[in-house]
Amino acid sequence: MRKAKAQTSGILTLLTDFGTQDHFVAAMKGVISGIAPKARIIDVTHDIDPFQIVSGAFLLAESFRWYPQGTVHVAIVDPGVGSARRPLLAEAHGHYFIAPDNGILALALEPLGPQVQVRELNQSRYWQHPVSKTFHGRDIFAPVAAHLAAGIAPSQLGTPIDDWLRPPSMAPLRTGSRIYAGQILHTDRFGNLITNFRPESMPDLLERPWKLQVGYYEVSGLIDNYAELATGELGAIIGSSGYIEIIANRSNAARKLGMVTGAPVELTFLKPDALS
Amino acid sequence: MRKAKAQTSGILTLLTDFGTQDHFVAAMKGVISGIAPKARIIDVTHDIDPFQIVSGAFLLAESFRWYPQGTVHVAIVDPGVGSARRPLLAEAHGHYFIAPDNGILALALEPLGPQVQVRELNQSRYWQHPVSKTFHGRDIFAPVAAHLAAGIAPSQLGTPIDDWLRPPSMAPLRTGSRIYAGQILHTDRFGNLITNFRPESMPDLLERPWKLQVGYYEVSGLIDNYAELATGELGAIIGSSGYIEIIANRSNAARKLGMVTGAPVELTFLKPDALS
Amino acid sequence: MRKAKAQTSGILTLLTDFGTQDHFVAAMKGVISGIAPKARIIDVTHDIDPFQIVSGAFLLAESFRWYPQGTVHVAIVDPGVGSARRPLLAEAHGHYFIAPDNGILALALEPLGPQVQVRELNQSRYWQHPVSKTFHGRDIFAPVAAHLAAGIAPSQLGTPIDDWLRPPSMAPLRTGSRIYAGQILHTDRFGNLITNFRPESMPDLLERPWKLQVGYYEVSGLIDNYAELATGELGAIIGSSGYIEIIANRSNAARKLGMVTGAPVELTFLKPDALS
Repeated sequence: MRKAKAQTSGILTLLTDFGTQDHFVAAMKGVISGIAPKARIIDVTHDIDPFQIVSGAFLLAESFRWYPQGTVHVAIVDPGVGSARRPLLAEAHGHYFIAPDNGILALALEPLGPQVQVRELNQSRYWQHPVSKTFHGRDIFAPVAAHLAAGIAPSQLGTPIDDWLRPPSMAPLRTGSRIYAGQILHTDRFGNLITNFRPESMPDLLERPWKLQVGYYEVSGLIDNYAELATGELGAIIGSSGYIEIIANRSNAARKLGMVTGAPVELTFLKPDALS
Repeated sequence: MRKAKAQTSGILTLLTDFGTQDHFVAAMKGVISGIAPKARIIDVTHDIDPFQIVSGAFLLAESFRWYPQGTVHVAIVDPGVGSARRPLLAEAHGHYFIAPDNGILALALEPLGPQVQVRELNQSRYWQHPVSKTFHGRDIFAPVAAHLAAGIAPSQLGTPIDDWLRPPSMAPLRTGSRIYAGQILHTDRFGNLITNFRPESMPDLLERPWKLQVGYYEVSGLIDNYAELATGELGAIIGSSGYIEIIANRSNAARKLGMVTGAPVELTFLKPDALS
Repeated sequence: MRKAKAQTSGILTLLTDFGTQDHFVAAMKGVISGIAPKARIIDVTHDIDPFQIVSGAFLLAESFRWYPQGTVHVAIVDPGVGSARRPLLAEAHGHYFIAPDNGILALALEPLGPQVQVRELNQSRYWQHPVSKTFHGRDIFAPVAAHLAAGIAPSQLGTPIDDWLRPPSMAPLRTGSRIYAGQILHTDRFGNLITNFRPESMPDLLERPWKLQVGYYEVSGLIDNYAELATGELGAIIGSSGYIEIIANRSNAARKLGMVTGAPVELTFLKPDALS
């Protein structure tokens, strides 16, 4: 029987909440370098707030799609390390994703739904032994990603599963005839609050007037660019990732509003839609 | 007609104020990897204070010259993104520089003056489409830099211009017969304040006695090494970049003086020069 | 006479306290790229607290061993830069280490003792000239590491010495019949306090009951995983590096205890050993 070989770009990206002040990321890169000496390792970020899976899901979705097909993306925000949560390998959009089964892949896999192929990584001959209880990044995820980048087929690395975790909360939820409950997906370096409202999947956002409620503040309608706002004034804009972002011109919206990633945002259409 | 090919080192450096906590830099690297798979991407820094063009200009000038000729240096600190400011490609010292037209290239290009070749990047077929309003790093600067590193000639990427921005404030200004107005170019991790006074371009600094006034503090004359100072004592030293730095031995001068990048520094020669 | 060539993996790792906000690391990488264009440069970390040699020694020891043999590891935490402290090249475990002679290599070299080959880097023809007083990273360590990665033999780079610094404080010291004085080797991003007590070198730790005294707090015995603790509760666990770590479940032990790297930790066995 012919064994399928993985078609990889030779690039391996890393996204974690491990920080860069410790040896964690360097140990992973050492393991990868030993197994796949020619793989190009690119850091997406290691500065995700500890255990902040929602931010991780957002950053993975916004970075992977700029890479060539066949790239291996490792995403580890893993509060459940050492527990029974499974390590996964997903194939989607021509990319490979390696991550714990905790929802961090939700936004990257989202547009595809059932076409995604997901495997549980259960072939321990491709792991680093002994496997520590607290550092699966080094002992499971890194070596498996490296073997994949070096050409080992996904079918050698794990078994297909269908019951991987699909968190319900990453897309806005309709909670009233004109009301949607959303959330802050990510807070960026500049303090911009990236919501999960996206015209691409909710075309009404461009056609009907609405307001956003975030904490005690209300923001109405989209602006086209920052210059429409006075310094420090709040506004909403379609950001470079296609989501609606709450911004404060030349200021830090997150600090101004006291808001963080995961905070709820409520969107209300000001008029009923055509069919209501 | 023969088309000139770019002579590049295959190295592409990135200097931005995008931080490393978001997807911005990773998206740029993905775009670059797709266009120039063999380019080696090296981060200079992404931790410049948001919109701090002066620091960016200093760090670019102090890093580029250690690289092989033919390296492509991308420098993005860009408060004017989305406005009419032009994207530039400059050739100087055998290096390539890609940046917004806002003065960030001033110190890197400075010693050359008129020999610099500067182009406006206006060939949108080398950009990533659609071009977002807020993220030209990903959509204009990264793809153009990658095409250049992959061998596309500068003449294909843009048109020569002569009226690029030359900020007057990066060199000391004579404001009296013995007085020069300077500034802090950069504050480093250790709190050392790097001024824009440099013996290389002001030889008098090594020959005539002077004092520096920075905030409420006065510093006189150069020391040779830190050990000449008591712990916490202020002093001035010629740093590894050739500029005069204000330091505090085993302490943080910036915090001690309450000073930041961009702050004014006044230098007074204590005696008239030979010709006065 | 045949000159020995260095057997290198082509990988060069960098560990410093230079931070990533300045041009320091980028200048080093430029120098390296010019001398060894094919070397793969991997950052271990640049975020060590300034001058914190103990953390540097820990992180170097915990990262180097995951790399292929023949890797060149550059470790610079160097409060004595510009003084008489010597620059070193050590060969051990099939790896190369380049560092100032201040104890930062202690934990990496420790298990070998006398089998280690250490040289003083004194062949200035492999340095970058002029050599600045404050930046030997760029002018001595980076070019020597690059020449080594490019195949220059260690014997060309320096002369064997035997009196390199061996700091006594990195292993626990017996201070009473059942008492050992130890210390915090490193505080990680999650606030876990990594002690220098390790069952691998003190098997008694797994066989006899003990308690740890750290500041005003006492911690008794090892737990197997975080879930055994209530949220915020303190415990001790064998971490992924094999050392005993003081942790606080889903919380920050360092902040809770007000402890930092270098702080003393006292371990007391609760009963005399079999032979006492």
